[in-house]
Amino acid sequence: MIELWRGGILESVHSGHAVICDDRGEIVEAWGDPDAVIFPRSSCKMIQALPLIESGAADAAGLDERRLALACASHNGAAIHTEPVARWLADLNLGDADLRCGPQMPDDLPARRELICSDNAPCQLHNNCSGKHAGFLTLTRHLNAGPEYVELDHPVQQAVRAAFEDVTALGSPGHGIDGCSAPNFATTVHGLARAMAFFAVADPEGPRRERAAARLTRAMTAFPELVAGEGRACTALMRATGGKVAVKTGAEAVFVAILPSLRRGVAVKIADGATRASEAAITALLMRSSVLDPGDPVVERYLTGPILSRRGFVAGEMKLASGFAA
Amino acid sequence: MIELWRGGILESVHSGHAVICDDRGEIVEAWGDPDAVIFPRSSCKMIQALPLIESGAADAAGLDERRLALACASHNGAAIHTEPVARWLADLNLGDADLRCGPQMPDDLPARRELICSDNAPCQLHNNCSGKHAGFLTLTRHLNAGPEYVELDHPVQQAVRAAFEDVTALGSPGHGIDGCSAPNFATTVHGLARAMAFFAVADPEGPRRERAAARLTRAMTAFPELVAGEGRACTALMRATGGKVAVKTGAEAVFVAILPSLRRGVAVKIADGATRASEAAITALLMRSSVLDPGDPVVERYLTGPILSRRGFVAGEMKLASGFAA
Repeated sequence: MIELWRGGILESVHSGHAVICDDRGEIVEAWGDPDAVIFPRSSCKMIQALPLIESGAADAAGLDERRLALACASHNGAAIHTEPVARWLADLNLGDADLRCGPQMPDDLPARRELICSDNAPCQLHNNCSGKHAGFLTLTRHLNAGPEYVELDHPVQQAVRAAFEDVTALGSPGHGIDGCSAPNFATTVHGLARAMAFFAVADPEGPRRERAAARLTRAMTAFPELVAGEGRACTALMRATGGKVAVKTGAEAVFVAILPSLRRGVAVKIADGATRASEAAITALLMRSSVLDPGDPVVERYLTGPILSRRGFVAGEMKLASGFAA
Repeated sequence: MIELWRGGILESVHSGHAVICDDRGEIVEAWGDPDAVIFPRSSCKMIQALPLIESGAADAAGLDERRLALACASHNGAAIHTEPVARWLADLNLGDADLRCGPQMPDDLPARRELICSDNAPCQLHNNCSGKHAGFLTLTRHLNAGPEYVELDHPVQQAVRAAFEDVTALGSPGHGIDGCSAPNFATTVHGLARAMAFFAVADPEGPRRERAAARLTRAMTAFPELVAGEGRACTALMRATGGKVAVKTGAEAVFVAILPSLRRGVAVKIADGATRASEAAITALLMRSSVLDPGDPVVERYLTGPILSRRGFVAGEMKLASGFAA
């Protein structure tokens, strides 16, 4: 799908799978194998947040759109992410110790600098998934369930699995443990694209699950900086598409897009797990879908390069492989 | 070649090319396409250092084995790397401004912390290639050549190209600009493995080029911490093989090994450019060649995993694809 060229010679190449689904969940276009089984990883956080809203837990806790965006986020651990998650937990009379995502050094440079230069270790709030876990804790509290909310048989994860299998329209062939220790349910690339199409066509006045999906999509596009952070592809691509599209990355090179204006869902998985390639592929597919201006700076940044030497000389470029999103 | 598994499901996979050459440069074993054209990137620094010794420049400048190891290094920018390179340049009455590699934030955590917390920017000495460039400057001085030693037509780069094409036994099909702005000459995976076999069998008392190659191999294995640094695969694998093997990584997932005891050379290129896979592949090939103990901790670290969640739970593992190095 994506090629890296240097000195006119192909240096590295990334292959993978991509599916675009219509409003009925049917394949409009596909590359690679639509039935390839993948872990969505963090690209399915908006699916994992459906039970939070459907259960009434979000409204009972008075979660605003910012907190719903954070529930779908893989954030940089910047102050704009960790402080609101800390306040959210405090409103539940909970704290960092109630999280089960584990600590993570933040990608946000000021936050990282503050920790390193003060000899402090990162806490669980810095974990890129802390908003998702705050959502899990909100649902746990609402269900009066036990504190080990990442266990597979916990009511929160059982509700997540039911919602996941419903919107992917596929029984999950299995699950793995994600980096944040929560279960991550496997599906196919088609199943994931179908789920994104469900979000794309969800009626804000429709059935409960559709209303929840529409609220999450709106929250993501309203607060792109909360879904990832400065310098991150999700934030940059949602800004560049002016709120017309919700996109979400996942570890090991998964990327999804929700296109309400086109009533379509997109899912990408790069076989080798390279994020640079999933970012390039989703950028190409957004351009191809005419929701991203080819002249936008994000296109050079994530799709074409140039690749520069450390003195700023042009050393190479990225290209779409022939036959992909051309 | 390398697979990543999570929850019993294949999550990501890396394919590539590998060649093991004997003392005549013939292929003993190969996987993928031995004739695939690649950029060796930093894996050929010991080839780029041959003219430094052959010309007499190294001895004229009184370079010891430590400086020869640094000339072959992709180092972490730790004090053990930057301070000796600074002294080396000072001995030439040169300094950081004479380098052409560009600045790079060091991977070494203490060095990085010192720069970040003192609000200082990295300098060119921190560039992982600064030792190679100090070698280029030493040869430039010896040849009374001009200061722009990374230009393709500069005597230093012309000497590098001649040595490169001789030891790979192949005319280079082209060149690219490396991250450090120096030319990087393309070859095939077989050509690179053949060059490593040349180093493996080089006679310390033999012809000039062989003597130079033998000195560089000895310098690398004598000072593994100078060739990369703490926590790095090159250093860990050379320590684990007890000086029996010299190994070197290159950007975009190239890895080479020089095995004097077996009179063999090895070259690996992962097609997608993933370093985690080139590290796993070279580790597997060293084990297969019986120069690395399967029980050594580096095997778990670079080849098998486990892959852990941020709370330390086992989430997955790495495996050799069937048919590779089995």
